[in-house]
Amino acid sequence: MKFSFITLFETLVKPYFDDSILKRAFENGLIDINFINPRDFSKNKYKKVDDYIIGGGAGLLMSVEPLSEAIKYIANQDKDTHFVFISPAGKRFKQKDAKRLAKFNHIAFICGRYEGIDERVVENYANEVFCIGDFILTGGELPALCICDAISRNIKGVLGNDKSLEIESFECGMLEAPAFTKPNIFRNSFVISEFLKGNHAKISVLKNEMAKLKTRYFRPDLYILKEKYEK
Amino acid sequence: MKFSFITLFETLVKPYFDDSILKRAFENGLIDINFINPRDFSKNKYKKVDDYIIGGGAGLLMSVEPLSEAIKYIANQDKDTHFVFISPAGKRFKQKDAKRLAKFNHIAFICGRYEGIDERVVENYANEVFCIGDFILTGGELPALCICDAISRNIKGVLGNDKSLEIESFECGMLEAPAFTKPNIFRNSFVISEFLKGNHAKISVLKNEMAKLKTRYFRPDLYILKEKYEK
Repeated sequence: MKFSFITLFETLVKPYFDDSILKRAFENGLIDINFINPRDFSKNKYKKVDDYIIGGGAGLLMSVEPLSEAIKYIANQDKDTHFVFISPAGKRFKQKDAKRLAKFNHIAFICGRYEGIDERVVENYANEVFCIGDFILTGGELPALCICDAISRNIKGVLGNDKSLEIESFECGMLEAPAFTKPNIFRNSFVISEFLKGNHAKISVLKNEMAKLKTRYFRPDLYILKEKYEK
Repeated sequence: MKFSFITLFETLVKPYFDDSILKRAFENGLIDINFINPRDFSKNKYKKVDDYIIGGGAGLLMSVEPLSEAIKYIANQDKDTHFVFISPAGKRFKQKDAKRLAKFNHIAFICGRYEGIDERVVENYANEVFCIGDFILTGGELPALCICDAISRNIKGVLGNDKSLEIESFECGMLEAPAFTKPNIFRNSFVISEFLKGNHAKISVLKNEMAKLKTRYFRPDLYILKEKYEK
């Protein structure tokens, strides 16, 4: 899987691939990373990539030209590229999207800065528009990294143990049961005694019940969906 | 405002402060960044920070001891520290949280890795638990950075123009109206003609209407809330 980042700030994105799981995925050839700077496509002699908002408004907007040229450059090299924009108006990125997009060959993230992107770039080039949450960031780099990371975990071989994927929160529409490791007692909190006994059938039933309770308590919205789905 | 990151991977977090807005905020003394590695608090001779999940399950869990020692180390230095955990069971981080937390003096993010954190660490030390969305990442570093970035923008002086904050998506429970910059025509898409005329009262009314329409279309959930709130 190839990931392209169209960003003014490669230095904010690239180091995330220099350690841990994504570094290993890159070294093992499971993912490939590519950076495109819209500034390289600016025809302005000062390499300007932003401009005033027409009709007034605070701040600057990323201009149409450098971004669209950067997008066309990638599209010309690889017609299979799936262009992903990040915008508050986008659909909420979810675990099922991570799994779905993990089957693509090439995903390009367009990372906005300043007050955002000229709407016409999104209208003309977006294959998909995502929002990761109802909060505002200084740029699209972090949400792009979140989406890239969530997708990468679902590419075969990226995680050492593919079993880790199966029992995870959101995988089956539920939160995961609480998990514990040594010591058995910590500040008067005990590991659930059944977990220590090693009857895996019993533990599995218990974990499932706890996952349900936890979901019902912390995420009633997910729980209701799950109930509906199972009926 | 001081941000502490309790993380095994400082190298994945620190570079995000090496450029753009957060770099400037750091250089201007508006934010301070601090890294604590739980590995430094491991009493194990191999500096182990993870262990098997009691009762079975794929993968490893971050152990109680190194994490809790790291947390206590910060708490001892600064009793005002607000400890933020990231977990799928946490409440959804929203723009109003970014604004609220921008008034704190010291926020410490506990970044989980592997299969997560022993539940008892969260129970004992969390002041607040957030979730940024229904997807799974390889670690808590990216959500911590998202939350830190969203908060930082709301610290006075971090953005060049504080006016940028007022008209943003989610600020008033609505998406922002579409925005345009030069050229006026791009691939047969025109900038809305009223925007070009410069009657700011008219533009303001139009933008408000467009924001409402955009919210109603893309985020009916927000729109319904907004309607309720205004009645």
